[in-house]
Amino acid sequence: MSRVVFLPSQKAVEVPVGSTILEAATRAGVQLQSSCGGKGTCLKCTVKIPLPGESTEGLVLACQHTVEDDLVVTVDEQLDAHSRKIMFQHNMPVIVAPCVRKYQIELAQPRIDDQISDWERLVSALPEKEIGFSRSVAMTLPHILRKENFLVTAVLDGNRLLAVEAGDTLERSFGLGIDIGTTTVVVYLVDLNEGRVIASGSATNPQQSFGADVIGRITHAASGPDRLGQLQKQVIDCLNEIIGRLCRENGIEQREIYQAVVVGNTTMSHLFLGIDPTYLAPAPFVPVYRKEVEVEARELELDILPTAKVVVLPNVAGYVGSDTVGVMVAARVDRLAGINLLIDIGTNGEIILAGKGKILTCSTAAGPAFEGAEIKHGMRAAEGAIENVRITTDVELSIIGGGRARGICGSGLIDAIAEMLQVGVVDTSGRIIKSDNQVAKLPPLVQKRCRRNDSSGEFVLAWSKDSANGEDIVLTQKDVRELQLAKGAIRAGVNILLQELGVSLQDIDRVMLAGAFGNYVQKESAVRIGLLPALPPDRIMTIGNAAGEGAKMALLSVPERKRAQELARCTEHIELSNQKNFQEEFLKALSFEV
Amino acid sequence: MSRVVFLPSQKAVEVPVGSTILEAATRAGVQLQSSCGGKGTCLKCTVKIPLPGESTEGLVLACQHTVEDDLVVTVDEQLDAHSRKIMFQHNMPVIVAPCVRKYQIELAQPRIDDQISDWERLVSALPEKEIGFSRSVAMTLPHILRKENFLVTAVLDGNRLLAVEAGDTLERSFGLGIDIGTTTVVVYLVDLNEGRVIASGSATNPQQSFGADVIGRITHAASGPDRLGQLQKQVIDCLNEIIGRLCRENGIEQREIYQAVVVGNTTMSHLFLGIDPTYLAPAPFVPVYRKEVEVEARELELDILPTAKVVVLPNVAGYVGSDTVGVMVAARVDRLAGINLLIDIGTNGEIILAGKGKILTCSTAAGPAFEGAEIKHGMRAAEGAIENVRITTDVELSIIGGGRARGICGSGLIDAIAEMLQVGVVDTSGRIIKSDNQVAKLPPLVQKRCRRNDSSGEFVLAWSKDSANGEDIVLTQKDVRELQLAKGAIRAGVNILLQELGVSLQDIDRVMLAGAFGNYVQKESAVRIGLLPALPPDRIMTIGNAAGEGAKMALLSVPERKRAQELARCTEHIELSNQKNFQEEFLKALSFEV
Repeated sequence: MSRVVFLPSQKAVEVPVGSTILEAATRAGVQLQSSCGGKGTCLKCTVKIPLPGESTEGLVLACQHTVEDDLVVTVDEQLDAHSRKIMFQHNMPVIVAPCVRKYQIELAQPRIDDQISDWERLVSALPEKEIGFSRSVAMTLPHILRKENFLVTAVLDGNRLLAVEAGDTLERSFGLGIDIGTTTVVVYLVDLNEGRVIASGSATNPQQSFGADVIGRITHAASGPDRLGQLQKQVIDCLNEIIGRLCRENGIEQREIYQAVVVGNTTMSHLFLGIDPTYLAPAPFVPVYRKEVEVEARELELDILPTAKVVVLPNVAGYVGSDTVGVMVAARVDRLAGINLLIDIGTNGEIILAGKGKILTCSTAAGPAFEGAEIKHGMRAAEGAIENVRITTDVELSIIGGGRARGICGSGLIDAIAEMLQVGVVDTSGRIIKSDNQVAKLPPLVQKRCRRNDSSGEFVLAWSKDSANGEDIVLTQKDVRELQLAKGAIRAGVNILLQELGVSLQDIDRVMLAGAFGNYVQKESAVRIGLLPALPPDRIMTIGNAAGEGAKMALLSVPERKRAQELARCTEHIELSNQKNFQEEFLKALSFEV
Repeated sequence: MSRVVFLPSQKAVEVPVGSTILEAATRAGVQLQSSCGGKGTCLKCTVKIPLPGESTEGLVLACQHTVEDDLVVTVDEQLDAHSRKIMFQHNMPVIVAPCVRKYQIELAQPRIDDQISDWERLVSALPEKEIGFSRSVAMTLPHILRKENFLVTAVLDGNRLLAVEAGDTLERSFGLGIDIGTTTVVVYLVDLNEGRVIASGSATNPQQSFGADVIGRITHAASGPDRLGQLQKQVIDCLNEIIGRLCRENGIEQREIYQAVVVGNTTMSHLFLGIDPTYLAPAPFVPVYRKEVEVEARELELDILPTAKVVVLPNVAGYVGSDTVGVMVAARVDRLAGINLLIDIGTNGEIILAGKGKILTCSTAAGPAFEGAEIKHGMRAAEGAIENVRITTDVELSIIGGGRARGICGSGLIDAIAEMLQVGVVDTSGRIIKSDNQVAKLPPLVQKRCRRNDSSGEFVLAWSKDSANGEDIVLTQKDVRELQLAKGAIRAGVNILLQELGVSLQDIDRVMLAGAFGNYVQKESAVRIGLLPALPPDRIMTIGNAAGEGAKMALLSVPERKRAQELARCTEHIELSNQKNFQEEFLKALSFEV
């Protein structure tokens, strides 16, 4: 028999070892909500118990956790209200247990024989202990306390008091998940009570004007005094514009946003924090910081509650940033069975290989080809972009928005080249055919599209009559080479990680494609051009903007945020430029031979 | 036998219980500096040991501390260099062990197989663990590390990294002790290596223009938006002006000042921090905060290293502020034998009674009479102020600076009234004599000085021919009443504390007068007018600006700063307005009867 004590009621009960906490609660007369019959799916019976070997408490489901020893269980009414199941795109449930919590309290009013200071009066009524003093909160505290007769709502982030609000404001609690991409900045506005994304907004990263890739930004930051500050201001202004819009459209005040969790590649995070990224560019690619960073919003001039914490998730290395950590959190790489390969293709390509109790990662200079840069008619996946290509008797195109073609985006590029390989417009070495007898083997309408430009071949995807700007939209030999370099880098990275883990391509149980790009790409095309390993299609899946998902999960759930730190800590970074066989693997991977 | 292990050398030795740590060190072959033959006076053999019952380490003298059990002793080379004895005005030695420490370190340079981030590279080389991330330091870290080939000096305050400086700057480490008085602001510039005050500067508190006392300031702060900010800015600007001057005159850069410890009455501290003092004015006199506050200098715009901590020592209550805590630290009230009375007379009068294991305190609205305000010819103790008065056959004056009299300061006022009482110009009820037959008993030259103004009497201290402005300098009946109110309030406070502790006046072993005022006042006069209890003069002493001393001690020594917190916590505050017998005691104390 074990003794279980329930707090705060102090009710105690003896139950046989192996009983669930829910059974013990029922016997002790402690009422826990539950509506799934103990199946562990409604998540309503969440309780706190001490974590083994740690001095903190952890959340468990009372119906799923058994009593193995004497146990103290804390039943928190607020926890029930907060604890809802939320479903992300890839169907991962997250228990809503944000670091930000609100408490409504009514204080005794001061009297001549009770002269305790306002601050101490307040904090002594809060469940958290050791609350650090906040000058910002103290500055206006006396008025707020007296505005509604000492009835207030306190906003806590861990043991930091973020704000005190007059009256009862329990129902309003918001946070932000922020994904700062080299190309696109995305902000998710999240209801921290409901665990629900209320709205999201995005914009082009305005730093774009100083270069499409991170090297351009680093070079600019180092090019003169205040350049770093300028880049930082650009991204903060851009975020503030999105935040302002999201707040207006959803009837939320900016001071009701109590936390922001940010992910981005290491360079983007450095720039966001105003930290000099100079030494990320040359070998040995050293970041200034690696672990999770917490900064007050006012310090960054981010337009949310000034005392709110801005949490930037940890990096793994100079070119494996918190965005990759976000992907790992969202995909739960530490809990997947078998051998799992994750590829996040953005302006850079980060690769994660998890299995055999290890997590390996590397980054490749994939180049911005997949985002449409460096491609003659390349463009982002916006209206007018060719997103899918089929070549049968002629070329068939799908165009975003359904109108005329303006250019080609990453997924279209992969499709196009896969199809060109399939019908023989491109050979396995990557050359666009030029000789008449090679061209003659193609269907007649496709033949017309093969032509020469100087000494190299090019292929017309859309004739001028069908294009938005009245020009032919073509793929050039150089475009094909750009794609080869990009996919070669990624495949070489994959191969090196596989060697490092001591497994072969065929051992991979699951390939996950993260990033907006992953949502649009045709798996078969990606396999055909050799970007992805040749595995059965059911082993390849897309998981959406997993980096942003990871940020939201860390915002909503303290355990997920801790997991992000743990993942960053235990992930092994493989520096490709330090691998003797990288050049060889890269050259091998350039070819389109399957 | 007990086992003693010395860190960092890991040398261990078994010694008999009762041996000193110094003896154990000698046996273990660990060299400790010592030049006083184990008398405990050179303070060179300072070592760290775990404090009983606490998770921190404390400093002890190896020659004085005996080994009673197994013990781990940390020998810190830097500690020796830092640990000097310093003598304050009242001859209290303080072991120099400031919270601010510098470490010179040389780091391995990054390589492709050693890509650890700059921050981690740095902190892993520091003795303190769990160093919090500082964005401010990180912002410029990469350049500073590379400026002198990864040879840097780190500046730590506890486990916060304040700055990283290129090269070896161990020899330069400075701090400030700041005493914000209602009337005067004083700044001490302290060398944290030497434990020495390099220079000090003072200025009139510019908030003076909004009222001589705290109530005037509180009223002004509440009188409109931004008024609080205006008062805060005034005192910060004033401090910055003094700090700038002290730095220029002593060849110190402001960024070399790594900490400031501030004391002031509760209102002054609230204003300094920009915290609304409104509810300090009406009963129940509630402060917004009470405990020690730490704020970054940049948040207050105090012109020292922006990341430096500004530490405001704790208050006891709304009218017993950190200045009083500073007095308690400097006077070491917790270590004095017998019954000890401390009085700090400034714009307010704070009283401390320590004995029988207790520390009691109260504050009295002494009014600014002792600082020259509310007195017809009152002035601060500056050039031209009458500071001493004797009445024999005529009046003899001592004037600050030796020139003509411009007015009278607090010590002169007490002297004057004591002498007027002595010769009979004032009777024990406080009335200046008017009737001719009373005046006739005085020496002829003194008789001339007694005259009427409307219906009350007044007394000429300096004739117009001897005064700086060509007017007679007089003491009016109202002036005497002001003094009576002020001294009555203080004596009533003293009496109530004595009753509360259950002791009588004659039980007092020591009376200490703190504050600039205490330095100038003639003890005998203060006793004569009943401001101080009638005790033998050798039991009465002055201890100077003890509030400022306390600030300096807390700056220089972590244990002293902890003591300040402990003193504020355990001191029992007696709210005089809540004492049933206060009015009665006050009325009794107005009289000049001895």
